[in-house]
Amino acid sequence: MNQIIDIGLLGLGTVGSGVVNIINSPKGRHPLVSSINIARIAVKDLNRPRSIKVDSSILTDDPFEIVNDSKIKLIVEAIGGIEPARSLILSAIKSGKSVVTANKAVIARYGKEISDAANAAGVYVLIEAAVGGGIPIIEPLKQSLGGNRINKVTGIINGTTNYILSQMTKEGANYNDVLKEAQSLGYAEANPSADVDGHDAADKIAILSGLAFGGPINRESIPTKGISNLQSIDINYAHQLGYEIKLLAIAQHLYENSTVNESIPLALRVEPTLVPNEHPLSVVNGVNNAILIEGEPIGEVMFYGPGAGAGPTASAVVADILNIAGISLTNETEKSLDPLLSACSWRNCYLANPRDMPQKSYIRLITRDTPGVIGSIGNIFGQSQVSIQSIVQFDLTNSEAEIIVITHKVIKGKISDSLAKIEELKEVIKIAAHFSCL
Amino acid sequence: MNQIIDIGLLGLGTVGSGVVNIINSPKGRHPLVSSINIARIAVKDLNRPRSIKVDSSILTDDPFEIVNDSKIKLIVEAIGGIEPARSLILSAIKSGKSVVTANKAVIARYGKEISDAANAAGVYVLIEAAVGGGIPIIEPLKQSLGGNRINKVTGIINGTTNYILSQMTKEGANYNDVLKEAQSLGYAEANPSADVDGHDAADKIAILSGLAFGGPINRESIPTKGISNLQSIDINYAHQLGYEIKLLAIAQHLYENSTVNESIPLALRVEPTLVPNEHPLSVVNGVNNAILIEGEPIGEVMFYGPGAGAGPTASAVVADILNIAGISLTNETEKSLDPLLSACSWRNCYLANPRDMPQKSYIRLITRDTPGVIGSIGNIFGQSQVSIQSIVQFDLTNSEAEIIVITHKVIKGKISDSLAKIEELKEVIKIAAHFSCL
Repeated sequence: MNQIIDIGLLGLGTVGSGVVNIINSPKGRHPLVSSINIARIAVKDLNRPRSIKVDSSILTDDPFEIVNDSKIKLIVEAIGGIEPARSLILSAIKSGKSVVTANKAVIARYGKEISDAANAAGVYVLIEAAVGGGIPIIEPLKQSLGGNRINKVTGIINGTTNYILSQMTKEGANYNDVLKEAQSLGYAEANPSADVDGHDAADKIAILSGLAFGGPINRESIPTKGISNLQSIDINYAHQLGYEIKLLAIAQHLYENSTVNESIPLALRVEPTLVPNEHPLSVVNGVNNAILIEGEPIGEVMFYGPGAGAGPTASAVVADILNIAGISLTNETEKSLDPLLSACSWRNCYLANPRDMPQKSYIRLITRDTPGVIGSIGNIFGQSQVSIQSIVQFDLTNSEAEIIVITHKVIKGKISDSLAKIEELKEVIKIAAHFSCL
Repeated sequence: MNQIIDIGLLGLGTVGSGVVNIINSPKGRHPLVSSINIARIAVKDLNRPRSIKVDSSILTDDPFEIVNDSKIKLIVEAIGGIEPARSLILSAIKSGKSVVTANKAVIARYGKEISDAANAAGVYVLIEAAVGGGIPIIEPLKQSLGGNRINKVTGIINGTTNYILSQMTKEGANYNDVLKEAQSLGYAEANPSADVDGHDAADKIAILSGLAFGGPINRESIPTKGISNLQSIDINYAHQLGYEIKLLAIAQHLYENSTVNESIPLALRVEPTLVPNEHPLSVVNGVNNAILIEGEPIGEVMFYGPGAGAGPTASAVVADILNIAGISLTNETEKSLDPLLSACSWRNCYLANPRDMPQKSYIRLITRDTPGVIGSIGNIFGQSQVSIQSIVQFDLTNSEAEIIVITHKVIKGKISDSLAKIEELKEVIKIAAHFSCL
């Protein structure tokens, strides 16, 4: 293990600095860490004062210089954003270097292009830090669960929204107040859209889905609903009925334990979802993340931990660096890539019609407080073969009532059809909210 | 991926059958599964009727015949127990074969001998199924957390005892009744000692400790306390004070974020422990397992799932088979082993003096119901510099009282010294229970 592996780091922000901190303090860590040498670092501004000590002679403001440096064996892309990150990754691959990246936006959109290029060039692109921060989820999905037929991946994979929802639940506070608090604590960006509108979670579930089901899906087609319109009254009612509301990202094979190797229908979505109190995801609070994987024969396994932050994300980046370093020590010229690690796609996956997805629903209706309204609603659901788990009426002022319906699991199309008819009932003032339930 | 890898399976019990079920139904699983061929199977009795279909021509009742078969590239040891499992593993290694095993008893006791032999022979011994059933924990610990300084591993790693404790908590039932129920459901053996006395959990924490801290410890020296003497009254009091009682297996570096690479003191133990309600381990119920890992810089990550059963355990065994198959496809002759996967030890670890371990305690005293008893107890703890979190008195009949003391975290020696003095107080009838708290 005396061989030294020279790596090039692109970006010295939060993640990049975290990586330097680990690599440059190897004592007490796995001995392989001391085989890694950060040979060059690309930064935006050479003159910016930095909180961490780095030898200024290894800095450059031209990342392509590092990507094309023949001494460098491995590129760590920690710039973020689509460009120039994508071009840098592709250039590194073309010059025969393996790449480690935390860039979920690029991988969710250009993952196929990048993995095709990597396979052609015989290099690895590892992405442990792209989903779930420090939680080991990419490697377990690629290496440890390969014997399973994966049925479903359910994730709380955005720390910002989970923090906001946890605070709304705990303190009964409204969305805007908690968002402001999260921004002041640094848990939410000044422009919070990528998080609160669900786009970040959609990037991540696109990546997990590709690994779990063996084929990419079109990132832009994932139905995505954020939490910015979520009202605390629904959190409150859900709580009374034994549920927490979480922003879940779900990728699901439409047929359980399927033995199909060709083309399979998936249901993907990001949306606020009611999680029953006894479900392991219901206790995932604050900025933590968790990913639950269901498969045959494993059943359910869950991975839980810090979903963001310099330290955890750097831990995941270093895991990938070590992984590639470990492999590179085993042999000088590889015959071919390890098919588990290279993560090529092996099936065609397509998004199913949303109407065909099985779904349990929470529906909040505002109605006139007249006798028989529950009967009318129940009849319409019955006619559409939507089976009801519970209907609870909460009284409001002004002779209006709120009715919360929780259905059993039926295909979503039947629920939509029922709601269209219910909306036309003269007793019904409006359908105020509609969420999925686990 | 058209190359076929012939493997030999030793044992066709629960785990072995589960492995056959996965390998022989590759459709819908990772394509690498179809590269695996179960070429030979060793069974105890060739004539026993079996629930799964296997070609009788590949069966033998001599496992050494398979271990010495040059056609076989990989041995899956699924016999269990110490011998002949240990000898078979060592023979397989000597004949140049990698080994996959779920055998925690052998690995906990002979792990060093086996890994030394494997490293000398240039083969891998993978043990994902030895701890946590289907939960990916060994590979993440070896590969995904290598950049961290691990501080602590805390596991609920015995499903039988977790089921019993969950039922005792939920139903207020006593130990013996729940044990009988667990036996009738197949969750506990007719002779439950290995589980309920903590030996199985001790095997597993020995293995996790070796991987987390980079060096083996003596399995037989791990302080081990089971649940058979646990009274439901303590579960009840703990619950009232905001705790659940779980059988925890803990391996802890005595110094946090240590940069020592040579010789480090560890505190290991298996014992019933109070877990606060807000702690992620407190909601791990039934036969599920969970392992919480604390490190720098990752913080806390937890792995949760089914800790036993044919399907989950087979999932873990197949993960290891695929891992070795994937590597064997990358190159014909390896220069050396991947240092992450081969899991050699790189530090000396020793068990610290139990008196030096920091510990928070739950203590139940039975006392005479006289004024001043709480003062006397408080004074003694104060003199030994044991800081108290709470003292609560519960009244009993017959002018006796029960007093529950929860301390802050102090080294264990100070608690023992205090308790020796408290036992001598004339107001104190007995120290009825003493547990650690997280």
